Amino acid sequence: MSEINSVRHRRNINVTWGDCDAAGVVFYPRYYEWFDASTHAMLAQVGLDHRRLRQEFNALGTPLVRAEANFRSSATYGDELLAECHVAKVGVRSFTVEHRLSRAGKTVVQGREVRVWAEPGLPGESTMRSAPLPDSIVAILEPKE
Amino acid sequence: MSEINSVRHRRNINVTWGDCDAAGVVFYPRYYEWFDASTHAMLAQVGLDHRRLRQEFNALGTPLVRAEANFRSSATYGDELLAECHVAKVGVRSFTVEHRLSRAGKTVVQGREVRVWAEPGLPGESTMRSAPLPDSIVAILEPKE
Amino acid sequence: MSEINSVRHRRNINVTWGDCDAAGVVFYPRYYEWFDASTHAMLAQVGLDHRRLRQEFNALGTPLVRAEANFRSSATYGDELLAECHVAKVGVRSFTVEHRLSRAGKTVVQGREVRVWAEPGLPGESTMRSAPLPDSIVAILEPKE
Amino acid sequence: MSEINSVRHRRNINVTWGDCDAAGVVFYPRYYEWFDASTHAMLAQVGLDHRRLRQEFNALGTPLVRAEANFRSSATYGDELLAECHVAKVGVRSFTVEHRLSRAGKTVVQGREVRVWAEPGLPGESTMRSAPLPDSIVAILEPKE
Repeated sequence: MSEINSVRHRRNINVTWGDCDAAGVVFYPRYYEWFDASTHAMLAQVGLDHRRLRQEFNALGTPLVRAEANFRSSATYGDELLAECHVAKVGVRSFTVEHRLSRAGKTVVQGREVRVWAEPGLPGESTMRSAPLPDSIVAILEPKE
Repeated sequence: MSEINSVRHRRNINVTWGDCDAAGVVFYPRYYEWFDASTHAMLAQVGLDHRRLRQEFNALGTPLVRAEANFRSSATYGDELLAECHVAKVGVRSFTVEHRLSRAGKTVVQGREVRVWAEPGLPGESTMRSAPLPDSIVAILEPKE
Repeated sequence: MSEINSVRHRRNINVTWGDCDAAGVVFYPRYYEWFDASTHAMLAQVGLDHRRLRQEFNALGTPLVRAEANFRSSATYGDELLAECHVAKVGVRSFTVEHRLSRAGKTVVQGREVRVWAEPGLPGESTMRSAPLPDSIVAILEPKE
Repeated sequence: MSEINSVRHRRNINVTWGDCDAAGVVFYPRYYEWFDASTHAMLAQVGLDHRRLRQEFNALGTPLVRAEANFRSSATYGDELLAECHVAKVGVRSFTVEHRLSRAGKTVVQGREVRVWAEPGLPGESTMRSAPLPDSIVAILEPKE
């Protein structure tokens, strides 16, 4: 699998005062908010915004089954970060997005989200249930040779 | 190491409307906010609230070097969750906190935070730098035989 | 109108590390998150949780048309706040909730939310539209003589 | 006072999935997060980033004494908003920032923040106390004729 040919996305993030905690550095759950926003922006870029996923594909969303991150260096308000992500793997019912946030080339955080395809639960069941990714979605997300 | 004799904490969390995303389930970065709040409450319970860590121990905080979570089932507004955590490991410069959120005995999320001890950076250095955990902190946090 | 006979709610809030900004005090949008959660808890207490509003009353939610707050004193992590709110006014299409957060009897924040009743928009319209409050809702919310 | 000659700022905001609540529209405390970030960006633009305020002017921050907003129409994920703000008034101890968020020319939210200048509290006092705005700050912020 070549990372080069993956679906991918880049954007800049300006770290704000409100992103920081009392130690003056980014409050770590914010990094996951940025991961989530990057994944959504990446999907929207290839035509898979969540509105379309819900209206055309009956998906409720792409909830996570796993997330992880390694925090390499801290960031603070005023910093401009580069947020990069790409689809690293597409399975039958899940796909994996890898994330990297960096400042001036230095890694701040590296992380990974494993997401599933969720459809509304059956009557009497819970709110949502995972389902196989539709073929047309797999075709778009799958890293190309 | 016995989990029984670890420093540990339990609390209830009422999931609110604002914790949920457009799919009506908890927006996943919130789980990490709850992990963080549980860790702080656990430390405060053994006398190590962050105000004291800052005033008596010159710590800036206990930032993360790693966090991970497995999301087993979804939660929605109106749910009452039980949040449990305990100190699973204490090293020279870091300690690990394991978290579990459940609803009526069923696991919603299991996760882990690896935190370091951070002191203010030297002049000319960055905002903070990790340092060895003070012996008195290790003595409190270390799981007992 | 007697405030005494209004629909009302009280709860405690433990201010956490993650609620605070780099000045070590509560990041002010958090106060509105707490207002929102208090309003939802108050409505749930009188049988009007948002799940029921959506399933039985076709409401999408109770979005705000106005919110305001006066911040009297600061709060920081470790503080325990008392959050009180009550329904101050019920109109044809809106209702007003007044909030007060205090610490040891001293006001931290006083605020007000004006909320409307929202139903799904008609096809071709926007996501939601305001509608008159159903009589049965007015009967529950209206301050009693 | 001419609004034209005020210190002012404009930026775009992409509304994300995580900004929305279970009704699929922006969770209203987010608007205040955006107000806060716009104010900080505006101040930074005229050389008054909070790092400098803290290091050169002994300010702890610019906490709010009052905030208010009128929500005119809803916004949802995928929307691009224009966030505009300007300094509307500068007093002895406070300044007022007016905000407007719009989508394609249509107002989504209009709001106002009244902020004070905060310095560290005296020993034995609370965390922070308000103080008169330094003259050099007033000179920068004051709307010009």
